[in-house]
Amino acid sequence: MRGDGRGAGDLRPVEILPGFVETAHGSALISVGRTRVICTASVEDSVPGWRRGRGEGWVTAEYGMLPGSTGERRPREVTRGRPDGRTTEIQRLIGRSLRAVVDMRALGERTVWLDCDVIQADGGTRCAGICGAWVALHLALSRLVARGDLAALPVTDQVAAVSVGMVDGRALLDLDYSEDSRAESDVNVVVTGAGRIIEVQATAEGRTFSRPELERMLDLAEAGLRELAHLQRAAVAPAGADGA
Amino acid sequence: MRGDGRGAGDLRPVEILPGFVETAHGSALISVGRTRVICTASVEDSVPGWRRGRGEGWVTAEYGMLPGSTGERRPREVTRGRPDGRTTEIQRLIGRSLRAVVDMRALGERTVWLDCDVIQADGGTRCAGICGAWVALHLALSRLVARGDLAALPVTDQVAAVSVGMVDGRALLDLDYSEDSRAESDVNVVVTGAGRIIEVQATAEGRTFSRPELERMLDLAEAGLRELAHLQRAAVAPAGADGA
Amino acid sequence: MRGDGRGAGDLRPVEILPGFVETAHGSALISVGRTRVICTASVEDSVPGWRRGRGEGWVTAEYGMLPGSTGERRPREVTRGRPDGRTTEIQRLIGRSLRAVVDMRALGERTVWLDCDVIQADGGTRCAGICGAWVALHLALSRLVARGDLAALPVTDQVAAVSVGMVDGRALLDLDYSEDSRAESDVNVVVTGAGRIIEVQATAEGRTFSRPELERMLDLAEAGLRELAHLQRAAVAPAGADGA
Amino acid sequence: MRGDGRGAGDLRPVEILPGFVETAHGSALISVGRTRVICTASVEDSVPGWRRGRGEGWVTAEYGMLPGSTGERRPREVTRGRPDGRTTEIQRLIGRSLRAVVDMRALGERTVWLDCDVIQADGGTRCAGICGAWVALHLALSRLVARGDLAALPVTDQVAAVSVGMVDGRALLDLDYSEDSRAESDVNVVVTGAGRIIEVQATAEGRTFSRPELERMLDLAEAGLRELAHLQRAAVAPAGADGA
Amino acid sequence: MRGDGRGAGDLRPVEILPGFVETAHGSALISVGRTRVICTASVEDSVPGWRRGRGEGWVTAEYGMLPGSTGERRPREVTRGRPDGRTTEIQRLIGRSLRAVVDMRALGERTVWLDCDVIQADGGTRCAGICGAWVALHLALSRLVARGDLAALPVTDQVAAVSVGMVDGRALLDLDYSEDSRAESDVNVVVTGAGRIIEVQATAEGRTFSRPELERMLDLAEAGLRELAHLQRAAVAPAGADGA
Amino acid sequence: MRGDGRGAGDLRPVEILPGFVETAHGSALISVGRTRVICTASVEDSVPGWRRGRGEGWVTAEYGMLPGSTGERRPREVTRGRPDGRTTEIQRLIGRSLRAVVDMRALGERTVWLDCDVIQADGGTRCAGICGAWVALHLALSRLVARGDLAALPVTDQVAAVSVGMVDGRALLDLDYSEDSRAESDVNVVVTGAGRIIEVQATAEGRTFSRPELERMLDLAEAGLRELAHLQRAAVAPAGADGA
Repeated sequence: MRGDGRGAGDLRPVEILPGFVETAHGSALISVGRTRVICTASVEDSVPGWRRGRGEGWVTAEYGMLPGSTGERRPREVTRGRPDGRTTEIQRLIGRSLRAVVDMRALGERTVWLDCDVIQADGGTRCAGICGAWVALHLALSRLVARGDLAALPVTDQVAAVSVGMVDGRALLDLDYSEDSRAESDVNVVVTGAGRIIEVQATAEGRTFSRPELERMLDLAEAGLRELAHLQRAAVAPAGADGA
Repeated sequence: MRGDGRGAGDLRPVEILPGFVETAHGSALISVGRTRVICTASVEDSVPGWRRGRGEGWVTAEYGMLPGSTGERRPREVTRGRPDGRTTEIQRLIGRSLRAVVDMRALGERTVWLDCDVIQADGGTRCAGICGAWVALHLALSRLVARGDLAALPVTDQVAAVSVGMVDGRALLDLDYSEDSRAESDVNVVVTGAGRIIEVQATAEGRTFSRPELERMLDLAEAGLRELAHLQRAAVAPAGADGA
Repeated sequence: MRGDGRGAGDLRPVEILPGFVETAHGSALISVGRTRVICTASVEDSVPGWRRGRGEGWVTAEYGMLPGSTGERRPREVTRGRPDGRTTEIQRLIGRSLRAVVDMRALGERTVWLDCDVIQADGGTRCAGICGAWVALHLALSRLVARGDLAALPVTDQVAAVSVGMVDGRALLDLDYSEDSRAESDVNVVVTGAGRIIEVQATAEGRTFSRPELERMLDLAEAGLRELAHLQRAAVAPAGADGA
Repeated sequence: MRGDGRGAGDLRPVEILPGFVETAHGSALISVGRTRVICTASVEDSVPGWRRGRGEGWVTAEYGMLPGSTGERRPREVTRGRPDGRTTEIQRLIGRSLRAVVDMRALGERTVWLDCDVIQADGGTRCAGICGAWVALHLALSRLVARGDLAALPVTDQVAAVSVGMVDGRALLDLDYSEDSRAESDVNVVVTGAGRIIEVQATAEGRTFSRPELERMLDLAEAGLRELAHLQRAAVAPAGADGA
Repeated sequence: MRGDGRGAGDLRPVEILPGFVETAHGSALISVGRTRVICTASVEDSVPGWRRGRGEGWVTAEYGMLPGSTGERRPREVTRGRPDGRTTEIQRLIGRSLRAVVDMRALGERTVWLDCDVIQADGGTRCAGICGAWVALHLALSRLVARGDLAALPVTDQVAAVSVGMVDGRALLDLDYSEDSRAESDVNVVVTGAGRIIEVQATAEGRTFSRPELERMLDLAEAGLRELAHLQRAAVAPAGADGA
Repeated sequence: MRGDGRGAGDLRPVEILPGFVETAHGSALISVGRTRVICTASVEDSVPGWRRGRGEGWVTAEYGMLPGSTGERRPREVTRGRPDGRTTEIQRLIGRSLRAVVDMRALGERTVWLDCDVIQADGGTRCAGICGAWVALHLALSRLVARGDLAALPVTDQVAAVSVGMVDGRALLDLDYSEDSRAESDVNVVVTGAGRIIEVQATAEGRTFSRPELERMLDLAEAGLRELAHLQRAAVAPAGADGA
C-alpha cells in the first residue's frame, strides 16, 4: 500500500472544473490529488508568420508555475528572463500532444493558445496540464461551433496523459511528489481516446531499466488513461448529458 | 445608476478565500466583482545582500497576469524577457504599501515575498492585489508566531486599497474595466486600518482635474476602504471568531 | 530655516538654458539647485504601429542618469540589460504628463521623443525633467510651425512639476537630496499652466500621513508651480519678448 | 530498399575519430552517414554551487549547430540571445544519458562538460552526439587516471543511442534527414552497453502509433545499438588493443 | 580649403571645461568643433573579481551617445538590451588607451571608471572622448593625492587621440561628420605625451590604401596630437599655473 | 630562434582544406600551426532591410569559438546571452575585410554570411579566419557562377591577414599563443592580393611603440602575406590547375 492508501494501479482523486476562468474562451481547473492546474484556451484569428497562407491553423502551449505553487517559493521565470529547460520541455510536450488531435485544416487560419499554470504542485503537473488543456481546448472550439464560426468541431480525438514509475522495484501509477523523488525510473504516457500512443517519455532516474520493466509500466498506464478519458468526457458534456 | 446597478459609492461584491493555495505559507483568493487575484506570501530565512547584517527583514511584491485573464490573450512577460512598465509600477506599489505596516526589526532577517497573480481581470487588479496580499501576509506571519518562530506578529496595521474615478463628471467608487476605460481621471488610494494614507496616485486620463474634484474622489474612497478593512479582518480571524 | 537658507515654501534657484543641444529639434538644460538635466525633443514622421492610420500623433519620454551624476557611480542601465523600476516609473510619468497638453490630432502622425538625461542629481530630477521637457517640446514644435510643417502649435497648455514633502513634521517645497532622504512623506505634483492637476503621487516614506497633511503639501506646491511656469514661459519666449 | 540502398535494419556508415580536438581533455569527431558532430569533454576542478560539499561530481552537456551545418544557414543562437526549445531538449537528453553511467562519488568534486557541435546535419544528430560524447568522456577521464588524478575510471558502463521510425508503415533504423521528414513516428533509444534502457522518447509525428508498432521499433533499435557500442569500444581502445 | 575654412592639417577649435560635473571625482566637457562629450572619472575602492588580491588597480571605460546627440534620434542602447558593436569597439579602445598611462601598482586596488557621453556628435567622438577622459582621470586621481589617499599621481604620461583620413585623395586632419562620410580611408591614432604610439586603427572605407598613404596620414596626425596635448595640460593645470 | 624553431619572419605551417563542410555553399578548414578554423560561406537571396531596393548585395561575418577550442573550456556565448566585446570586434573586422573585395552591384540583392568557428585556438584566429573566409567566399560565389546565377565572379581581389608583434624587443611574424601572451605590441594587417592595405590594427600591449618599430612590423607582415595569398589561390584553383 502507498503512503496515501492507494493501490499500485490507482489514480489520485481527480476533479475537473470546466469554465473556471470566465475571461478565456475555454478553461478548466484540474486537480489530481493536491496538484492543481489552471488551463485556458485562447483563440486568435491568425497564425504565426511561417504558417500563413496555407489555410491551416496552429495549436501551441505555454506552461508556468505560480511562485507559491511549491513549498519553497519558485522565482518567476521573467526574473531570469527566459523559461528554464524543464519549462521548455513541458510546454513543447503539451503542444505536440494537443496538435495530434486537431484537424488544422478544419480549424482554419486560427491559433489556439493553451496555457497551463500550476497553482499547487505535487507531482504529475505536465500530465494534469495535458488532461486539462484538452478540456479547455474542447470548450473553446465548441463555443466557436456554437457561434457558427466553425462548421464542425476540429477536435478529432481525446488526449489524456499519466505518469508511471518504478519505485522500490514496483511499478506505480500516477506518482505524487514524494514518490516521484524516490522513483528509479519514470514514464509519461500520452494517448488518444482510442488508446493509440502520441508520446512515451521513459527516463531512468537513478537506475536503468529493462524492456520487461518498460512493458509493465506501459500496461499500468493503460487502465489509468481510460479512467482519465472518462472524466474528461464528463467535463465537456453539456450539463445533464453525462449522467443521462 | 451604474451599469451593474451600483450607486456611486458602492463597492462591487468582495469575497476573500483565505488559504486558497496550500503550498504557500499564507494565501488568499480575492474576488472583487469579476476581478480575481491569487495572493500568496512566502517567507524566506534571509534578506537581500544590501540589507544583510542589520537584523531587519524585507517585504517585496511581484505581480503577474495569467495569459487567459483578459479577453484578448495577454502574452507572458517571460516571452518578452522582462516585466513591462505597468507591471513594474504595480509591483513597486504593492511592495511599498505592505512594507508600510511591517515592523522590520520584529520580522528579523527574513524576506516575505508577496505574489499577486490575476486570474480574471475586470479593473482594480492592483487594489484587489493589495487587499489580498495583506491577508496572505497576515496568515503567513501568524503561522510563524504559532510555530514559535516569531514572538509576536510584526504586522503593525491593516492595508487596504481602492480606486475612484471621475466618469462623465461624476466621482465613482471601485471602477470596473468598462468604467475605467471611460474614466477622465483615476485615483488609487492605499490606507492603513486607521485611515492614514500610505499612497495616493491620482492621474488625469483624458481630462485634467481640479483640487475640489480630487477632494471629492478622496472622500468617496474613505467609506469603501472602511468596508474593505472589515472584510480583511474577517478573513484572518480564527474560525468562529468573526461572528462571535 | 533649511540647510541652504531657504524658507519652507522657497524653490531652489532655477535656470533654463534653451537650445543647449544643437543637434536636437528642441532642447533645454535645466538646473534646479545642483540638479541638472539635459532635455531634448526629437520629432519623427511616424507613429508606433498600434497608433497608425488614425491621423493622430504620439508623445513618449525616456529618462536616464549619466553614470557620474550621483556621488557613487551609477552603473549604466544597458549593463543590466533593461531600465530599472524607478526609471520605468519616471519615464512613464514624464510621458503621461506631457501627453496631457498635446493636441494629438493637430500634431498629426508624428512622434515626439522627449529625452531627459540627468547630468547631476541632487533631488527632484523627475520634476526638473518634466519642466525642461516642456520647454524642449515647445521649441521643437515651434520650429515645425516656423518651417510651415504645422499650421499651429499643438501644445495646448504648460506643464510644470514640483516635489513637496513632510520633513521633521513640516511641509517643505522642492526637496534636495539630503531633505528627500529624511522625508517622512513625499508628493510629486504635476499641473497645467492654469493650475489644473495632471498627476499627484503622494507616498509615505517612513511614516503614513493624514488628509490634512496631504492638503498642506498640495497648498505649498501651488505657489512653487506658478513660479516655475513663469520661468518656462520666459525660456520659450522669442528673444527680447519676455522682458518687453 | 531505402534511398541509399540500406535495409530496414541497417545503420549508416559510422566513423569515430578520437582525439580530433587537441585542446580538449577528450574529444571525438563522429560521422554517421553525412551527419558529423565534434564532441569534446572538458574537466573542471569544481562543481556547481548547489552540489558543493558532497564529494560528488557532475556531468553536463551542451549542444550546438554551426551555422553552415544545414542547407539553409542556421542563425547562431547567441543572436536570439538564448538556446531554442529543441537545443534545450537535446542538451538535457545528452546530459541525463551520460550521467547515467558515471559514478559521481568516484569522479569527486569535478564537472565534466560535454560539448556536441554539429558541423554537418543529416538526421540523428542527438544520437550521434550521445555516442561521440561517451567516447570523449571516456578519453578525458582515462587521461585523469593515467596522470594519477583519479584512482580508477568512474565510467560504469557504455552509452549508445540510435533513432528508429515508422516510414510508410515500415520500421526503419537510423533515419537520415529525408526519411526523418517523412516519418510518421520517431523513437530515440538510449541504452547502456548491457542493453538496459536509459531513455526512450517515442513521438507521433504525423500519425499516432500502437503498442505493437512501438515494440517493433524498439526491437529494431537493439541490433543497431549493439553495433554502435562495438565501434565506441574500438575508439577508446589503446592503439593495437582492438584488433589484438 | 575645407568646408569650414580649415587647412588640411588644422584641428577644429577645441575647448576643454574641467570640472563640468560636480558629482564626479573628475570630469570635463570637451568640445572639438560641434562635437561635445561629457567625460567623468569615478574611483571605486575595489577591483573586479578576477583582479583581486594582486595589489593592482584597474581602469575601464564606457561610452554612450545621448539620444538627441545625432540629427536623427538615436535609440538608447538599453532599449535593445545591449551595447551595439560600434559602442563596444569604442569603449574597449578608450579603456586600452588610458590603461597604457596608469601605473596600476601605484593606483592600488581601486577601479577608475571613465564615462564618455556624447551630447553632440559631429565626427571624432571617440578621439574627443579619449582626450577628455584623460583630463577627467587626471583630475580624479589628483584629488586622491590632495586628500592623501595616494602618495603620488599614478598617471605616467598623457594620452591624446585624433583622426586623419584620405578625402578625395588628400590627407585631412580631424574629420568632421561630413568629411568622415566621404572619406576613402580613416585612421585613429592614440599617442602618449612623448609621441609614442598606443594604438593605430587604419581602415579602408571605400578604397584600399597604400603604405605611403598610411605614412602621410600618420605624419599629419603628429602635429595635431602635439596641440591637443598642450590643451590637455592647460586643462589640468592648477588655476593660474598655465599662463604663468 | 623561436620556440618552435621558426625564424622571425617565418609563418607557421599553413594548410587549407577547401569544401570541408558539404552542407555550406563554400567552406574551408584552415590550419595555421595548431590554430584551426572552420570557415563557411552561405548565400541568401535577400539583403537586410536597410539595404533593400538598391540592387546591391551585402557581406557579413560571424565568429565563434567552440567551447573545447581553448585549454580551459570557454563558455558558450549564448549562455551569457550575447557575444562579448572581443568577438564583436573580430567579426566586425572580418566583415569589413571581406566587403572590401566584393563588388556589391555584381553580387546583386544577395547576402553572403561568412562564419568562422575556431575548433583549436593557438593565436592568430582572426587572421586565420579572414584567410579561410576568403576561400569559402570564393568557392560559394564560384558555384553561383557555375550554376549561371551570376554572370561573373563578384570577387574583385584576394584578402589575406597576418599578425606581427614585438616580443622581447624583436619583431616576429605570425605569433602563436605563447608569443602573443608575451608580446609588447601587436599588429594585425589585412591586405589585398596586390598588397594594398584594408586594415591595420596596431596595439600596445605592455609597452608603447615608436613609428620606426611600427614600420618594422609592417615590413615583416608583407612577406608573410604574399605567401598566404599564394596558398589561398591554390585552395580555390580547380583541381589540377595549381600544379599544372
